[in-house]
Amino acid sequence: METKKIFLPESEMPRQWYNIMADMPRPMEPPLHPGTCEPAGPDDLSPIFPMNLIEQEVSTERWIDIPDEVLEKYLIWRPTPLYRASNLEKYLQTPARIYYKNEGVSPAGSHKPNTAIAQAYYNKVAGTKRITTETGAGQWGSALSMCCSFFGLECKVFMVKISYNQKPYRRLMMETWGATCTPSPSTETQAGRSILEKNPDSPGSLGMAISEAVEAAVGDDQTKYSLGSVLNHVMLHQTINGLETQKQMDIAGDYPDVIIGCAGGGSNFAGHCLPYVRDKIHGKDIDIIGVEPSSCPTMTRGPFAYDFGDTVQMTPLMPMHTLGHDFVPAPIHAGGLRYHGMAPILSQLLLDKLIRAENVDQLETFQAGVTFARTEGFISAPECNHAVAMAIREALKAKEEGREKVILFNWSGHGLVDMAAYEAYLTGKLSDQPLPEDEIERALSAIAPLPKPKQYTG
Amino acid sequence: METKKIFLPESEMPRQWYNIMADMPRPMEPPLHPGTCEPAGPDDLSPIFPMNLIEQEVSTERWIDIPDEVLEKYLIWRPTPLYRASNLEKYLQTPARIYYKNEGVSPAGSHKPNTAIAQAYYNKVAGTKRITTETGAGQWGSALSMCCSFFGLECKVFMVKISYNQKPYRRLMMETWGATCTPSPSTETQAGRSILEKNPDSPGSLGMAISEAVEAAVGDDQTKYSLGSVLNHVMLHQTINGLETQKQMDIAGDYPDVIIGCAGGGSNFAGHCLPYVRDKIHGKDIDIIGVEPSSCPTMTRGPFAYDFGDTVQMTPLMPMHTLGHDFVPAPIHAGGLRYHGMAPILSQLLLDKLIRAENVDQLETFQAGVTFARTEGFISAPECNHAVAMAIREALKAKEEGREKVILFNWSGHGLVDMAAYEAYLTGKLSDQPLPEDEIERALSAIAPLPKPKQYTG
Repeated sequence: METKKIFLPESEMPRQWYNIMADMPRPMEPPLHPGTCEPAGPDDLSPIFPMNLIEQEVSTERWIDIPDEVLEKYLIWRPTPLYRASNLEKYLQTPARIYYKNEGVSPAGSHKPNTAIAQAYYNKVAGTKRITTETGAGQWGSALSMCCSFFGLECKVFMVKISYNQKPYRRLMMETWGATCTPSPSTETQAGRSILEKNPDSPGSLGMAISEAVEAAVGDDQTKYSLGSVLNHVMLHQTINGLETQKQMDIAGDYPDVIIGCAGGGSNFAGHCLPYVRDKIHGKDIDIIGVEPSSCPTMTRGPFAYDFGDTVQMTPLMPMHTLGHDFVPAPIHAGGLRYHGMAPILSQLLLDKLIRAENVDQLETFQAGVTFARTEGFISAPECNHAVAMAIREALKAKEEGREKVILFNWSGHGLVDMAAYEAYLTGKLSDQPLPEDEIERALSAIAPLPKPKQYTG
Repeated sequence: METKKIFLPESEMPRQWYNIMADMPRPMEPPLHPGTCEPAGPDDLSPIFPMNLIEQEVSTERWIDIPDEVLEKYLIWRPTPLYRASNLEKYLQTPARIYYKNEGVSPAGSHKPNTAIAQAYYNKVAGTKRITTETGAGQWGSALSMCCSFFGLECKVFMVKISYNQKPYRRLMMETWGATCTPSPSTETQAGRSILEKNPDSPGSLGMAISEAVEAAVGDDQTKYSLGSVLNHVMLHQTINGLETQKQMDIAGDYPDVIIGCAGGGSNFAGHCLPYVRDKIHGKDIDIIGVEPSSCPTMTRGPFAYDFGDTVQMTPLMPMHTLGHDFVPAPIHAGGLRYHGMAPILSQLLLDKLIRAENVDQLETFQAGVTFARTEGFISAPECNHAVAMAIREALKAKEEGREKVILFNWSGHGLVDMAAYEAYLTGKLSDQPLPEDEIERALSAIAPLPKPKQYTG
């Protein structure tokens, strides 16, 4: 019988994370202080992050040891299985060999605990008692809630209001793990109140929720803030995925021609592809594709520029592809991809043509998700369906070309808590969400007054 | 680092199911025809089941080969990992070593696909085009929907109305896999109409839904009925679990003193424990415990007697522990355990004292589930929490006794689609559901007029 899953023994789980900053062809632009527009130093970040994570944020060491306490918790679900999508291949009648890394086996159902465990641990060591964060669809908030419960930390989550209402089950997961969850914008913070004053019916956005979570952390030494994507140390922690995948692809005796991941803030895609980007820097020919929703086309439409990470301009200015910090994407079901910016690491790699970006309409992603469910069995999160859709596109292209291409994608999480989205799709109530051109022009124009990074090519 | 998960390589997955009927100390009593009360032969079952499954139902061969097509689909999630509950052990400060078999990694999130795959396959081979079934909480219905989609069969599910309303996500999983799902009692069948006539607000029960699904299958050669528990061939298919577990416990170098599973119709418990029951028959000292809700105490309160599997008396009479075929349990959240009967195989083993039974109140099960989630990470299905609660009881007993006991339990599935139940618990809205004594007396008295099996000890 053909091998379906490639497992890595626990003893083979990587003991170090990979830091792409050691290998990038051009150095990263620094974040800037939001007040002075001067490069932000560790001290500027210390009110919201513990120093051990700030050190990782700026480190250029290639390999960073994973603490034993983190490795021990990783073993709850890691190493995750690499799958051969043999049933999907047969259905598509493609000569391509399709592999997917199944990050949905974590208790939270996604890749998010890879960094949540690390961040909870480093905060614990640094003396933090309470962590605040934001969440979109709830995958990040639920992951951090679980990991805080493992290390005895309090956890407070601001959840984008539209998702809070659409996805009660993820809120309930957070509460089961002992966290408190508040719909954002809320009246609990100045940021929330000022947003509600302008628009009492605001559906919320990740940018707004970040503002609230940051504000709730500042000014209390024992409370820190945690971000589930975008930042360098988050990408670092997620590389456990790609490092495992490389070992598993070796076991399978294959090497990917194409690597695919969906990208909101960028963490699952980065974690999956960065070890392979290193191979590409060293001469390997790989097509590495980040997939975003056409209604939030950060990489495919947004310029590379300095912009705020949040809506009310509290965070440092980040050098990244951005649609403007107050862009509010259409309420698509892939809540985790509704973010105006993109991780600076991925933005830089995009600029340097080491990765590329594509966008996909909502209906195509759900069509792909249903095909995947009826062949491979697993029901994907709406975010993840963006990767599935692109893998199917590539597999059909390989069929047209008659090529035995090797396609690898990151299956970032299951959609069992997102079934309302499938209901909308199956009953014909779902539509694509065309980008409102006037809104995007307005949002993009708000970026202009800020300083431009040196490598800005726009 | 201590091993957390014991994986079995795909190459080590068992190639045969284990049939306990070859080893039982006393032979099973036969099912009886509901009209004549004479032993029911294969021909009596052929209107609803294909002959290849009927052959398995009556087989006394010890080992039955698993077809290659079934093995291939099993590989989507099997072999499943065996976990050491090290974090729970630490939290309980118990000297016991606790292991759990994680059946929640299947795409449907439970153990149910173990038999659904087999039944879909055997029906496909026998020329069936369409399968009808019933489901309680939806775990069985969703599993069968997925497996029918793999083999290109139509699937029609009657879902207990109260669960249909409480658990829309499981219905949506069924629809995503291409099945149709109807709340039961429905107006689509005579059985449903007659129940609704007496009680238009009936919340439904598994017994009623079985009546509807059987009726919908009879009279059409290309439509067959499928049952997710109770029957001998279902227990047979589920033994893949226990057979894997035995290999994994060998790898761990441990042997269980106690084995625990929750029991509704009995399939996850049987699948997990039957290979160990064989060891016990051969002299091993193991305490094997089936755990049921105190509000549906089939094994702990029901006599061993002949009774119908369904409410409107369409199925053969089965020799089993039963609360009476028209007993309607309180609407506890563990919908999959709300069944009046128990698998004849388990009923016979209980009679022969090879297994024993305990029952647990609803609140204790959810308390156990939250403890488990905050230590081991995984959120259990309400059914599964019955096993978790009993494992915790046993671990605390070991602590009192200062014994290094080895406790093994079956973690039959996750609860990510059952979060409304956790909400009720966390907000203090959940209560125990004391057994209405007058109702159970009434239901039990309805069993009396039927013939008694020879081994009936009541």
